Amino acid sequence: MLILPCATSLIYQEHEMFSFLVVIAACLVIGTLMTLKKPKNQTIYLKEGCVATAFSWLALSIFGCMPFYISGEIPSFTNALFETISGFTTTGASILSDVESVSHGMMLWRCFTHWIGGMGVLVFLLAVIPMNSASGTNMNLMKAESPGPSVGKLVPRLKHTARILYVIYFGMTVLEVIFLLFGHMSLFDSLCTAFGTAGTGGFGIKNDSFASFSPYIQWVVTVFMILFGINFNFYYFVLFRNIRKALSMEEVRTYLLIILGAIAIITLSLMQTMANIGDAIRHAAFQVASIITTTGYASTDFDQWSQMCKTVLVILMFIGACAGSTGGGMKVSRLIIMAKTVVKELSSYFHPKNIKKIKMDGKPVEHEVVRAVNVYFITLMGIFTVSVFLVSIEGRDLVTNFTAVASCLNNIGPGLSQVGPTQNFGGLTGLSKYVLMFDMLAGRLELFPLLLIFNPCIYRDMVMGVFRRIRRRRELRRAN
Amino acid sequence: MLILPCATSLIYQEHEMFSFLVVIAACLVIGTLMTLKKPKNQTIYLKEGCVATAFSWLALSIFGCMPFYISGEIPSFTNALFETISGFTTTGASILSDVESVSHGMMLWRCFTHWIGGMGVLVFLLAVIPMNSASGTNMNLMKAESPGPSVGKLVPRLKHTARILYVIYFGMTVLEVIFLLFGHMSLFDSLCTAFGTAGTGGFGIKNDSFASFSPYIQWVVTVFMILFGINFNFYYFVLFRNIRKALSMEEVRTYLLIILGAIAIITLSLMQTMANIGDAIRHAAFQVASIITTTGYASTDFDQWSQMCKTVLVILMFIGACAGSTGGGMKVSRLIIMAKTVVKELSSYFHPKNIKKIKMDGKPVEHEVVRAVNVYFITLMGIFTVSVFLVSIEGRDLVTNFTAVASCLNNIGPGLSQVGPTQNFGGLTGLSKYVLMFDMLAGRLELFPLLLIFNPCIYRDMVMGVFRRIRRRRELRRAN
Repeated sequence: MLILPCATSLIYQEHEMFSFLVVIAACLVIGTLMTLKKPKNQTIYLKEGCVATAFSWLALSIFGCMPFYISGEIPSFTNALFETISGFTTTGASILSDVESVSHGMMLWRCFTHWIGGMGVLVFLLAVIPMNSASGTNMNLMKAESPGPSVGKLVPRLKHTARILYVIYFGMTVLEVIFLLFGHMSLFDSLCTAFGTAGTGGFGIKNDSFASFSPYIQWVVTVFMILFGINFNFYYFVLFRNIRKALSMEEVRTYLLIILGAIAIITLSLMQTMANIGDAIRHAAFQVASIITTTGYASTDFDQWSQMCKTVLVILMFIGACAGSTGGGMKVSRLIIMAKTVVKELSSYFHPKNIKKIKMDGKPVEHEVVRAVNVYFITLMGIFTVSVFLVSIEGRDLVTNFTAVASCLNNIGPGLSQVGPTQNFGGLTGLSKYVLMFDMLAGRLELFPLLLIFNPCIYRDMVMGVFRRIRRRRELRRAN
Repeated sequence: MLILPCATSLIYQEHEMFSFLVVIAACLVIGTLMTLKKPKNQTIYLKEGCVATAFSWLALSIFGCMPFYISGEIPSFTNALFETISGFTTTGASILSDVESVSHGMMLWRCFTHWIGGMGVLVFLLAVIPMNSASGTNMNLMKAESPGPSVGKLVPRLKHTARILYVIYFGMTVLEVIFLLFGHMSLFDSLCTAFGTAGTGGFGIKNDSFASFSPYIQWVVTVFMILFGINFNFYYFVLFRNIRKALSMEEVRTYLLIILGAIAIITLSLMQTMANIGDAIRHAAFQVASIITTTGYASTDFDQWSQMCKTVLVILMFIGACAGSTGGGMKVSRLIIMAKTVVKELSSYFHPKNIKKIKMDGKPVEHEVVRAVNVYFITLMGIFTVSVFLVSIEGRDLVTNFTAVASCLNNIGPGLSQVGPTQNFGGLTGLSKYVLMFDMLAGRLELFPLLLIFNPCIYRDMVMGVFRRIRRRRELRRAN
């Protein structure tokens, strides 16, 4: 992955190239050493899938931040790690106050992390690397990394599913680059912007994010943000199966309805202060698309908007994009399931003995999925509450703490007040930054994989495994 | 109920007495007319229980606000209704800017509404009114009105359970009055304060709530607030059964632990600004007790405290007191069940096939209760989100809107910023006030009873019933 920014540095003749080469060499050596000994049992259960995913993302973040740290572009390790986690988790919260001074190679790497993290690194590996184990077990890796309450395979073989997803992802990114080039954006800027949009990340390439770009480019980005927030199954159905099935997807319809509703409310409110209706609609659409897809670009300083608009944006932060997209947040499908649960509860007062299963897209939703969605929401709120408390120790105002955590946990980027679109996260204390890093990873991996690694059982099992192996060797020696 | 404040007005020779007499007369006439015709089928199912409770509380609020409105003490009907609903739901959010100018009769009625609403009006009726129907059906009335995830009967007969609860309630209130009298508080003030504490309401009798009272009185109120936030089953066990069973109640222990933890955190933070450790502990204890029991008294302007303290208080707002107490909020038992659900989910990754039931006080919690708790939380957050949005239309800051809704939905009283302890709710617009009134009722009746009356099915059934009766009469006439 590091070859792309390394090549960019070479083209622009930047000395940052060497930091990339150092990290590439380190990764090659460590990676080769670690894969020398292969485990006998290659079956991956849900537990292993979750733990492997969580540790992979941690390793990824630590190695990913090295170029920033070694090159000295981000001198503090905490800040470099924050920026990288923010990139891979497609959050887009930045600690940089002057984005435009970063070298080309580093900027491309910064934006490329969004693209890598958007669809999932392990899903990518599943698509390209030959694996011997049965398809069903690798499913657990994909389950742990893919967003949404339930993961379905598009085609019988998991590897093909992963490939199809990446082909769609790649194709749409190229399409956006072409559209941006038409708007007289440079190739480098187009690539960086497209990476950020595709992964619904949100690292800006200018200090004012998108405020200084032309309305054409803002509209292109708006449309592509919305498109990348749609469940990728939708595109699969559009391309290979029937369009009717795609259009009947309940989640996609609800998602588009929420976007339209939010744009309407915000446009009405903005029209009181903006003279031009076109401008009001453009800014409303851009910001709604940016927040609900959890991208986090800004076309204007929405922290100055009316309280009602800001409240709508905060609500959108939690809703998030569709499951199976590159977006974060709670996901629209979870919202639908939760809303249906509440309606079902209310109707159970009328017909206590006639309880129907919740349906989605005409199919009944498994009881297990409903339970998992409810528990997910409770866990989300629990992590949210603890994080807001920990960040509040620093002493900033409630709106800053609240939206900083909401923004990181839902992988959006900017919040309001002191972490608003014109501000950055650089001024926070180390504690707050590490809490927010945890939130970003938790949000990206959908909470449970990351919470699992805090369970001491894992380490007990690992230590026990090592002991058992030592004992067995001793016994073998004695037998000999 | 109105006789008590009416008599108070008589003692103090206030002309407000007549407004009480008018409302008493109106209630007598309307009440007699409504009970003239008794329904044939007296069975109360859960649906009827919920709908009856919701409409009773609405009627109660409208008649309860009449004395304020007729006497002209609160000239606006919206404000009078807000104050009354805030009283009955034991919220304690006030629209009055000058509390000390209210007449004695009205002040007593204002505080007495807390006492009435605290234990529940319908539970009171169950205790005193002879009813013919089977005990099991009245249970649904009690279920709809009583706080907590599951309602148990202490003794086989529901009527006796209701009486025991009211005896404990009455006894503890008297005890508090005695303690307050020892602190040289006048009988009138002691009564009003005790009513507010017992119902965990929070209407102050002074403009500065409890800031000007002596430390002794503040400590007495602190202790009694905590006591009234404990599950009343605890006292029943202490009085009639065994103390060991009382002490082993998981909810009570968690509740006390949370209180101790919160006091410790806030005391540590306050000690940075307060010279005297005793003062710091007193204010911390008073405020923690006041917020977690959802009373809402203030011994100091906690809006001036550090951000960390305020965050702790906002978290306590949502936790609330024990189930089966007079306090509001989400209830500690729900918190415990939710926490255990999350832990169970995490451990299911390790032992997917060995899923144990969640236990509480050693007994397994029914799957149905767990589901209801999860749905309750989701519904709470849904109502919370919609309310914050509706209140935000007014244009106040996010902290005000957020804490105003949190405070009303959890029946606390004061929030932060513009609805902080030194402010009041009088300045809000009509829309915001009605939204908050809905929230207060929803919070007190634990969401579902109030949501049910928005279901058009109820009215369809009612209209259909009337039509059916008319048709039957016609058929009878024809047959004659």
